[in-house]
Amino acid sequence: MADNRQAVEEPANCAHCAPPSGGKKVEQPNKKALINRMRRIEGQMGGVRNMIEEDRYCVDILTQVSAIKAALDGVAIQILSSHAKGCVRAAVLEDGGDDVIEEMLEIVRKLIR
Amino acid sequence: MADNRQAVEEPANCAHCAPPSGGKKVEQPNKKALINRMRRIEGQMGGVRNMIEEDRYCVDILTQVSAIKAALDGVAIQILSSHAKGCVRAAVLEDGGDDVIEEMLEIVRKLIR
Amino acid sequence: MADNRQAVEEPANCAHCAPPSGGKKVEQPNKKALINRMRRIEGQMGGVRNMIEEDRYCVDILTQVSAIKAALDGVAIQILSSHAKGCVRAAVLEDGGDDVIEEMLEIVRKLIR
Amino acid sequence: MADNRQAVEEPANCAHCAPPSGGKKVEQPNKKALINRMRRIEGQMGGVRNMIEEDRYCVDILTQVSAIKAALDGVAIQILSSHAKGCVRAAVLEDGGDDVIEEMLEIVRKLIR
Repeated sequence: MADNRQAVEEPANCAHCAPPSGGKKVEQPNKKALINRMRRIEGQMGGVRNMIEEDRYCVDILTQVSAIKAALDGVAIQILSSHAKGCVRAAVLEDGGDDVIEEMLEIVRKLIR
Repeated sequence: MADNRQAVEEPANCAHCAPPSGGKKVEQPNKKALINRMRRIEGQMGGVRNMIEEDRYCVDILTQVSAIKAALDGVAIQILSSHAKGCVRAAVLEDGGDDVIEEMLEIVRKLIR
Repeated sequence: MADNRQAVEEPANCAHCAPPSGGKKVEQPNKKALINRMRRIEGQMGGVRNMIEEDRYCVDILTQVSAIKAALDGVAIQILSSHAKGCVRAAVLEDGGDDVIEEMLEIVRKLIR
Repeated sequence: MADNRQAVEEPANCAHCAPPSGGKKVEQPNKKALINRMRRIEGQMGGVRNMIEEDRYCVDILTQVSAIKAALDGVAIQILSSHAKGCVRAAVLEDGGDDVIEEMLEIVRKLIR
């Protein structure tokens, strides 16, 4: 939370964002925790692969796949949150943020599908 | 800052937003088109109800339900877009927008599910 | 529930299914309740349209749209359930059901997206 | 009935299914290809983790997360397909399949969410 607030109050990591072009560097707040979260999901994926290798029951496998999807949604929301509070806010303050807002909506559209 | 405010579309709609408390009035941009879009989806829903009444084939009904869900996602993205460009942007310029950004993420979470 | 079981034990409504071609007639079990369920969702849609007309707050509108999507998923699951217990089961017993199972998976794919 | 059973793909996998109790062994058809598919998705997840470590742009990361979710849906549909054509079909032929069909709908509900 402290890290989050720092990112919010000094969106320095986003000052050099020139959205929506590529090549930007954005350090995620709580980067270490986020990486660990990804590692756990990778572990869940490996677990599902083992279940297939061990001929486990289809429905049990699908239950795990559903859990992984939910975990990925959680990661997506966390990154989207950093993005909105960091890059998007910085862009709004800098130039109104039209492009960055459009870009954010486009990725939300993909996530909603 | 004044320039930034000019860059905001429909600032008038959101100038009196005191998010995220209730009771706000926000006229949707393209309000008439949006209402017509809603009417079309209601028409699709009536069509599905007729299909059920006429004992139409399950899969044909489900195909229509799927189309309605996609149409609703389209409406949601349109409203979310107005919200981001209007209320959220205005709040960021006014006070940093912490609460409004959190609130927006919460609704995105619901839409992603 | 009684209706459901009748549909299950005597899948008469699906005996004349020649899937996956069109023109089939399939009376939904609990047809009346299902139609009422659709009417309620149509009512929710009208409510959302009114919210837009009355310039209600974007996030409140989106919350309702999200609720409608969940309600539609409920309807879809109910129809998919009738389909699996009626048409799909009948087809499996009749000819193995290859085509009907493929068709069912295709609609599940659309609903999952 | 014997003919029906012959029409079932991979009947051997599911002949010993006593759904929906646990402990069943179900070898997935195309097991090797499915495992490779899982490995590829794990590779994509590692890629996302690297993107976070390298401070890559939020939206680029989210685009990859969205692609992984779609890939997982593809795997889910493949497993669900094996399940419907194997376990569910076998259960319908054996005892009507009430429990297995309910169980299948429950997992579809989770995947649709």
